[in-house]
Amino acid sequence: MLNASDNALLTQTGAGTPMGKLFRAFWQPVLLSSELPKPDCSPVKVTIMGEELRAFRASDGTVGLVEPRCPHRGADLFYGRNEDGGLRCVYHGWKFAADGRCMELPIVEPGPERDRMMARIKLKAYPARDFGGFIWAYLGPKEQVPALPQLEFALLPPAHSYVTKKLQQCNWAHPLEGAIDTAHFSFLHMAVSDEDDTDRLRWIRNDPAPRYTVVAHPAGLVLGAARKADNGDLYWRVSQFLMPNHVLAPNAHRGEIHAGQCYVPIDDNHCWIFNYTWNPERPLTEAERETYRKGLGVHPELDEQWVPVRNRLNDYLLDRDKQRTINYTGVDGISEQDAYICDSQGYIADRTSEHLAPTDLGIVRFRRLMLDAARKLEQGTRPEALSHPDGYCARGGGTVAPGATPFADVMRERFGHELGRITRAAPAVA
Amino acid sequence: MLNASDNALLTQTGAGTPMGKLFRAFWQPVLLSSELPKPDCSPVKVTIMGEELRAFRASDGTVGLVEPRCPHRGADLFYGRNEDGGLRCVYHGWKFAADGRCMELPIVEPGPERDRMMARIKLKAYPARDFGGFIWAYLGPKEQVPALPQLEFALLPPAHSYVTKKLQQCNWAHPLEGAIDTAHFSFLHMAVSDEDDTDRLRWIRNDPAPRYTVVAHPAGLVLGAARKADNGDLYWRVSQFLMPNHVLAPNAHRGEIHAGQCYVPIDDNHCWIFNYTWNPERPLTEAERETYRKGLGVHPELDEQWVPVRNRLNDYLLDRDKQRTINYTGVDGISEQDAYICDSQGYIADRTSEHLAPTDLGIVRFRRLMLDAARKLEQGTRPEALSHPDGYCARGGGTVAPGATPFADVMRERFGHELGRITRAAPAVA
Amino acid sequence: MLNASDNALLTQTGAGTPMGKLFRAFWQPVLLSSELPKPDCSPVKVTIMGEELRAFRASDGTVGLVEPRCPHRGADLFYGRNEDGGLRCVYHGWKFAADGRCMELPIVEPGPERDRMMARIKLKAYPARDFGGFIWAYLGPKEQVPALPQLEFALLPPAHSYVTKKLQQCNWAHPLEGAIDTAHFSFLHMAVSDEDDTDRLRWIRNDPAPRYTVVAHPAGLVLGAARKADNGDLYWRVSQFLMPNHVLAPNAHRGEIHAGQCYVPIDDNHCWIFNYTWNPERPLTEAERETYRKGLGVHPELDEQWVPVRNRLNDYLLDRDKQRTINYTGVDGISEQDAYICDSQGYIADRTSEHLAPTDLGIVRFRRLMLDAARKLEQGTRPEALSHPDGYCARGGGTVAPGATPFADVMRERFGHELGRITRAAPAVA
Repeated sequence: MLNASDNALLTQTGAGTPMGKLFRAFWQPVLLSSELPKPDCSPVKVTIMGEELRAFRASDGTVGLVEPRCPHRGADLFYGRNEDGGLRCVYHGWKFAADGRCMELPIVEPGPERDRMMARIKLKAYPARDFGGFIWAYLGPKEQVPALPQLEFALLPPAHSYVTKKLQQCNWAHPLEGAIDTAHFSFLHMAVSDEDDTDRLRWIRNDPAPRYTVVAHPAGLVLGAARKADNGDLYWRVSQFLMPNHVLAPNAHRGEIHAGQCYVPIDDNHCWIFNYTWNPERPLTEAERETYRKGLGVHPELDEQWVPVRNRLNDYLLDRDKQRTINYTGVDGISEQDAYICDSQGYIADRTSEHLAPTDLGIVRFRRLMLDAARKLEQGTRPEALSHPDGYCARGGGTVAPGATPFADVMRERFGHELGRITRAAPAVA
Repeated sequence: MLNASDNALLTQTGAGTPMGKLFRAFWQPVLLSSELPKPDCSPVKVTIMGEELRAFRASDGTVGLVEPRCPHRGADLFYGRNEDGGLRCVYHGWKFAADGRCMELPIVEPGPERDRMMARIKLKAYPARDFGGFIWAYLGPKEQVPALPQLEFALLPPAHSYVTKKLQQCNWAHPLEGAIDTAHFSFLHMAVSDEDDTDRLRWIRNDPAPRYTVVAHPAGLVLGAARKADNGDLYWRVSQFLMPNHVLAPNAHRGEIHAGQCYVPIDDNHCWIFNYTWNPERPLTEAERETYRKGLGVHPELDEQWVPVRNRLNDYLLDRDKQRTINYTGVDGISEQDAYICDSQGYIADRTSEHLAPTDLGIVRFRRLMLDAARKLEQGTRPEALSHPDGYCARGGGTVAPGATPFADVMRERFGHELGRITRAAPAVA
Repeated sequence: MLNASDNALLTQTGAGTPMGKLFRAFWQPVLLSSELPKPDCSPVKVTIMGEELRAFRASDGTVGLVEPRCPHRGADLFYGRNEDGGLRCVYHGWKFAADGRCMELPIVEPGPERDRMMARIKLKAYPARDFGGFIWAYLGPKEQVPALPQLEFALLPPAHSYVTKKLQQCNWAHPLEGAIDTAHFSFLHMAVSDEDDTDRLRWIRNDPAPRYTVVAHPAGLVLGAARKADNGDLYWRVSQFLMPNHVLAPNAHRGEIHAGQCYVPIDDNHCWIFNYTWNPERPLTEAERETYRKGLGVHPELDEQWVPVRNRLNDYLLDRDKQRTINYTGVDGISEQDAYICDSQGYIADRTSEHLAPTDLGIVRFRRLMLDAARKLEQGTRPEALSHPDGYCARGGGTVAPGATPFADVMRERFGHELGRITRAAPAVA
C-alpha cells in the first residue's frame, strides 16, 4: 500500500517528474530495430514517457531520434522525406542530419545570413543505438550518457534470440509488479482441471502461497519464490528486477529458453512491453520462432501494429464457458492473461486501498527501491546501477532443491553465481 | 425555469450530492432479473448514479452487488469466476460471498494470521432483491433500509407483466419531465394527416393545451390533464409521479394494459429507463409480448445491449420525407420519439432559459417536490414516501367524463380511489 | 514568431474574444447555397466560431439562421418541421419565422395571455444572404450590418464560377498563412523529377527563395513573390489577403481560371475552407467542373459531407513509395498537400518557437494587420475594410516581367490596377 503521493511518484514518468528523471538516466528500448529496416527508410513516430519524437535511419545507417517538428513553422517531420543523409521537411525543404544539424535551408538565399541561420538552427536530437534487435534511446543529461545495459540476449548472436514488443493499455508499473509477483501463477495461468498437470504445475497449483526471498544488488533485485515440491524439496522460481524497468522471468529450467521484459512508458496510461527470449546455448529454431509469432509465453498473438489480438477493445475475447470449464480466466495465452488482469487494475492501479500479503514482498521491495532511487536522484545522487552495466548480464529461472538449502546455494547451483550473473563478452556492435 | 444552482441540484445524483442522497434513500432497479439468469452465472457490470459495481448470482440464487475491485491489488471482479457460493478473483484466487464476506485467501498460509486477514477484509456489498422482474438495490445508509415500493406490476404473477429497460443518452430528469408532460402528445406523437384519427387522437389533436390538475400525496403526485372531448365532455389523461423517479402513464382506459417507467441515473449524462407494462386482470398474451419486443408504446425496438435501435449515433433513423408527409418527427415509435426529443434537449437540459406555459404545471410541481425533498434530507428529514410503500400500488390512465365533474370524482369513477390507489396483497417473493 | 498571448489572440474566435469580434464585424460564408436547395427543405446544423446554429429556407426562399433550441424547453430545432413559412418545434408545436418571430404557440389557449407570450418570445436570428453560391451570415452588432464583400466571383453569372467547401481539421489561421506563403510551392507541391517541368515549374523549382513585396490597402494586403525566370526576367506570383479571412491565389496567368479561399472557423480546432474558382471572361465548361469535382487545385476530392477523402483519419492516404520516387509529399493533390502540412502543424500552430525567414514577410504582415485590427476594435475603432466592399473585387495571379520593373508597374500591366482591383457592377441578387 502506498499513499496517493507515492503512487503518483512511482507511476508518473513525464518530463520533469522525479520518476521521469530516473527513467531518463537509463537507456530505454524505444523501437524494434526492424521498424527502421534500412538506410533512408520512412521516418516513424515514437512516443516515450509522454514525449513525442520522430525516428529515422540515415543513409549511413545511423538512427536519428529527433523532436517532431521543423523549427521553421512547426510542420511535422513524420511527413518528412528521408533522403541523402538527412530528413527533409517537405513544406519548405529544410533538411536535418541524424544528430539534428541543419544541412539545407533553401528558402534563404546563399550568403553569410544563411550561414548564420544554419549554424543557429538545430533539431533537438537524442542519442540512439541498435542493440540486441531494439533501438535504444537515452533521453537524459547529455554529459552523463551511461553504458548500455549488458543484457545477455543482446550480447548473443541474433540467431539465439527472439524479440518483439506489445502494447499494454495501462501504466508501466503494475504490469511490472505482476511480473515479479510469481505467486499469481497458481490461479491466473492455471487450468481448472489438474488432469494435465506436470510436476511443476502440480506444485504451483498445490502451493499458492510461495515464500519469498529478496536479495538486493547494485543493478536491482533477485527474487526467489519457494513452493513445496515432493519429498521435502522446494520448487524455486527466481526472477530478476533490473533497474529501472526490466524483469527476467522465473520459468526456465536448465537448458530451456529464457525470457525477459522491459516496461517502457508511452504515457502514464500506456506502455510498450519489449519482450526478449533467448537461449544462451543454441540458436532458436524456426519452429520455435513460429510458436512465438502465434503467441507463447511472454509473446502474445499480435496485429501488425504490435497490439495484442486480445485487448481492452474486444474484452480479450473473453469466453465465459471456457472460464467455467477450462481455465480460471476464460482468456487464451499467458501474455494475454497477464495483460487483461493488469488492464483490469485500471489505467493507473490505485495502491492506496490495497491489502498486501506476504507473497507481495517482492512488490514492496521494488517500490521501495524505485521510490528511494527517484528521491535520491532529485537530491543529485545517481543510481548505482548506472555504474554496473555488467550486472544486467543475468538470468532468472527455476529449479528444485532440498528444503534446507540456503537461497545463495540454490542460486549458485542453478546459475553458477549467487545473484544469477553471467560472464559474457560484449559483441563488437554495442 | 430554474436557476443554475437548482438545475444542478435536480440533475446531479453522484455520491455525496443532495439529489444523490435522496435517490439512495429509495430502492432502485439496477438490472433486469434476466441479466443474472441463474445461480453461478457470469458476473455483470452495473453503473448507477456514477458508482461502478459488479453483480453476480451466487449458487443459492442470492444476488451480490459489490464494489468492482478485489481488495488485494485492485483486479476487476467482472473478470472473476463465479463458483461454489462466491466470486473468485482470478489474479490470486481470493473469493467473496454475495454479502462481501471473504471466503478464501489462498496466497496466505493457513493459520491465525490468515484468519485475522479474512475477518478484516470485506468487499463492500449493497442489499439487492429480485422483485417484479427487476433486480433492485439499496445504496443508502445500512441502518435505514426501507420496504420495497409496492408497485402493482411487481405484485402480480409474472405472466401479467412485460418488463424491460432502455438506454437513454441524457440525464434522468428531463425525460421524466417529458413523461408527466402529457401535452406533448398533440405534436410529438401525431400523424400529419387526421385521416386515421380515433376519437382519442382527434381530441388530442384538436386541443393541444390541456388544463392540468395536480394533487400531492405521500408517495408523489397525481396529474390530470383535461382536453375537450365531444358534447361538453372532457377527455382526462391521468399520470402518476412516484418518488423519486417513477411515472405511471396516462393512456390506459378501463381494461387496457397499463404502463410505467422508472428513470435510473447511470451517470449525470445517461440513464436506464426501466419500463413495465401490466394488465391487472389477465396474463399478457404471447402476441402482445411479441409486439413489445418489436417496439410499441413505452417499449422501443432494442438491440441486445438494451440500446434502442434508433439512437443518438444514427440520428434515430430520422426520415425527412416521412416528417413531411407522415408524422411530425420523421421518427418511428412513441418511445423513440420521446427519446429523441429528450436527447435533443442536451445531455442535461438547460432550465435557466426556459419559457414555461400553463401545461407545464406538472413539471413545476415535480421540480418543487424533488428540490424540497432533497433539501429536507440534507437537514435530516427523510421523505414521507419511504413510510408509504403501499402508496406505490397505484395506476394512471384515461377516461371521459362530463365537463363539470370534479377531478376527485373522475378519479373515483375511473380507479375506485381518488388518488388512483389499488389495494393488493404483496406476493411471497418480495 | 509570436508570444503565447498574441498566438491566442490571433487564433481564438469564440464569442467574446477580440478576434471573434473582428470576424463577427464581417459577413462570413456559413453554408453552400446548395445545402438549402429549396423552400421548405430540411433544416441543417451550422457551427461557426464556436456557435451552434440552425439554418432553414422558409417557404418564400428566405434563409433563417437561428439559435439551436426552442425557447420553451430547449428541444433542438434541427429536428423541427419546416412548413408553411416557418420552422415548427415538434415537441409542442411552437413555430418560428426566419427572422425569429413566434408564429404559433399551440399549448396556450387563444387570448391576451397567448398574445403577450407570442410578442415576448423570440428566437435569436442572424441576418443571412445568398450570394455567389454561398450563404453568408452576419453575427455582429445588429446596428452595424456592413455591405457584402464585392468579390468578383460572386458578381459574375453563376456559370462563370465553381464553388465548394472543405473541412480542414485545424485552426483557421495557419492554413491561411500557408495560402499567402507562396514560397512553399518549391517543395510541397513539386515532383521529384524535373522531367515534366513547365517553364513556371522550372522557375519555382530553381528559386525556392522568392523576394516578397507586400503592399497594404484598405481591404487587406497585396503580396508579390518574385522568382528568377529566364534572361533576367522575374516570375511574379501575386496573392491577395482580404480582411479578415480571404486569400486570392497567385497562379492564374492572363485568361486562366482564378481561385480564392475563405477560412471560416468552426471552432478553434477546425475550419471550413470555402473555395471559389472563376473565370471572368467565360463560363466554366462541364469538363472543367468535372475535374474540380474529382479534385484539382484548391478543390480536393471530397466525400458527401465535404470532408476531403484524404484526411487526418487515414493519414492522407500517404504513399511512402510515391514520396521516394514521384513527389515530395507522397500525397496526391495540391489542396490535399496544403491540408496535410497544415494539419501537421497541430490543431493550433505553436508560433512561439518558430524561426521565420525572409520569405515569411507576408505572414508577418498578415499577423500584424489582424492583431492590430482586433486590438483597435476592442478600443472601438472598426476596421477600415468594412467601408470598402468594392476593395474585395480584386484578383491574384502570375506574370513574367523584366527584372527592373517596379511592382506597381507589374501590377498595372497584369491586372490594369496597381492593387489588382477590378471594376464590376454588383448583380441584382446581392
